[in-house]
Amino acid sequence: MDNMNEMQFTEGTFDALYGHKIIKIERDSIKTELLITSDHHQPMGLVHGGVYASMAEAAISYAAYFTQEGVWVGVNNNTDFLKSAKEGQLICEASPIKIGKRSQLWEAKIYNDSNLCAISKVRLSNLNV
Amino acid sequence: MDNMNEMQFTEGTFDALYGHKIIKIERDSIKTELLITSDHHQPMGLVHGGVYASMAEAAISYAAYFTQEGVWVGVNNNTDFLKSAKEGQLICEASPIKIGKRSQLWEAKIYNDSNLCAISKVRLSNLNV
Amino acid sequence: MDNMNEMQFTEGTFDALYGHKIIKIERDSIKTELLITSDHHQPMGLVHGGVYASMAEAAISYAAYFTQEGVWVGVNNNTDFLKSAKEGQLICEASPIKIGKRSQLWEAKIYNDSNLCAISKVRLSNLNV
Amino acid sequence: MDNMNEMQFTEGTFDALYGHKIIKIERDSIKTELLITSDHHQPMGLVHGGVYASMAEAAISYAAYFTQEGVWVGVNNNTDFLKSAKEGQLICEASPIKIGKRSQLWEAKIYNDSNLCAISKVRLSNLNV
Repeated sequence: MDNMNEMQFTEGTFDALYGHKIIKIERDSIKTELLITSDHHQPMGLVHGGVYASMAEAAISYAAYFTQEGVWVGVNNNTDFLKSAKEGQLICEASPIKIGKRSQLWEAKIYNDSNLCAISKVRLSNLNV
Repeated sequence: MDNMNEMQFTEGTFDALYGHKIIKIERDSIKTELLITSDHHQPMGLVHGGVYASMAEAAISYAAYFTQEGVWVGVNNNTDFLKSAKEGQLICEASPIKIGKRSQLWEAKIYNDSNLCAISKVRLSNLNV
Repeated sequence: MDNMNEMQFTEGTFDALYGHKIIKIERDSIKTELLITSDHHQPMGLVHGGVYASMAEAAISYAAYFTQEGVWVGVNNNTDFLKSAKEGQLICEASPIKIGKRSQLWEAKIYNDSNLCAISKVRLSNLNV
Repeated sequence: MDNMNEMQFTEGTFDALYGHKIIKIERDSIKTELLITSDHHQPMGLVHGGVYASMAEAAISYAAYFTQEGVWVGVNNNTDFLKSAKEGQLICEASPIKIGKRSQLWEAKIYNDSNLCAISKVRLSNLNV
């Protein structure tokens, strides 16, 4: 992990477009952040549901990429929206539910301050089996 | 619908940031589009899973906003990724599975040319009941 | 399919316990049925949500078993409950959304007369890859 | 809770048919059990996926019924199958992710000894709003 340059990793990607940044990756967890601006809102002025789904999808895919053997792609993203957010910071913390040879299932929780705004399960499939 | 200005509706929002445009809204359907650029990619050069989830979330929320009584918010987004895309256009077509008083369930299908890339179910809840 | 004896196939299993019967299997579809009795109810006298999930799970697993190469196991069952049922017959009709080498995604619709009571997506994984 | 007779509550229902028993209900949790017999198997001799989905559905619905105000019905059951089981006991433990006025989201974990076999999210909707 030491030499990883995450800024470079996501440079020019969708995560760079919407300002999603990796803070920390460990074998069993990842932490990412996003500073909310009006660019993340839907028309009612709340954070767009797609922002939460995108953060979970990316965080979990990147954690698998950096910590697991194999080539992993997302096959399902199931996100529940629990509380709306308008401003401040979103923190996404994800950890695995099951790491298998063919399939991984992770869960991400996304917080705005102490509020749990969204919870997401992402299933990844190994292209190398 | 005739006087609706969707460009204005999504101006300054997340959908404007990632280039997601409403093409047509009818009572039982919505059609939207996105022109893929590298800004929509994940690090492997494929369209980011969050783009599909965001398109489904937005398309279905906007269809409910413009065609149904009540104030509807997304409570769940369940997106399956079926085939990757790199370039060209994404077309999202959504229609309702069930329209209830308290809850709506819609399904979105997202195509890249004739390939079905993602299928998504979004559940909306009525804040006015 | 001609020589298949589905009664024998499910004999002594959970499907036999709750009276779930295969009517017809084709390459791209399966049709099953259940005659509702009070044994299928939850305490309020409506069909138990688990009955719908079980029917979808079984129908799709059996269709994969009889029509696809490989050894397929369910990894996710996502069932939406749309309308309650009390009596009569439940008919489950399922067809594939995507048949891949590693993964299959099917959708089941369960009807009570003409009412769509539940819709379910089941993902199967191939143990042979 | 003191006077509740859960045996009576589920008497004659689907849970009685497949031998699913409530062990303990508290405000923020429920614990249930099932003794696996061949009646719970699918044709390969493993516990049928529908059994896990049914246990989660019932456990969470009963916890809401006994501990929350309102009339709650399940609208979605999303169950991931993590590890197969053949014999012994299944223990289901569920707790709420979010308790809202209109909607509740709970998570159930189902164990066979120390193995986590399935994890399930169930969303309930309040018919009284």
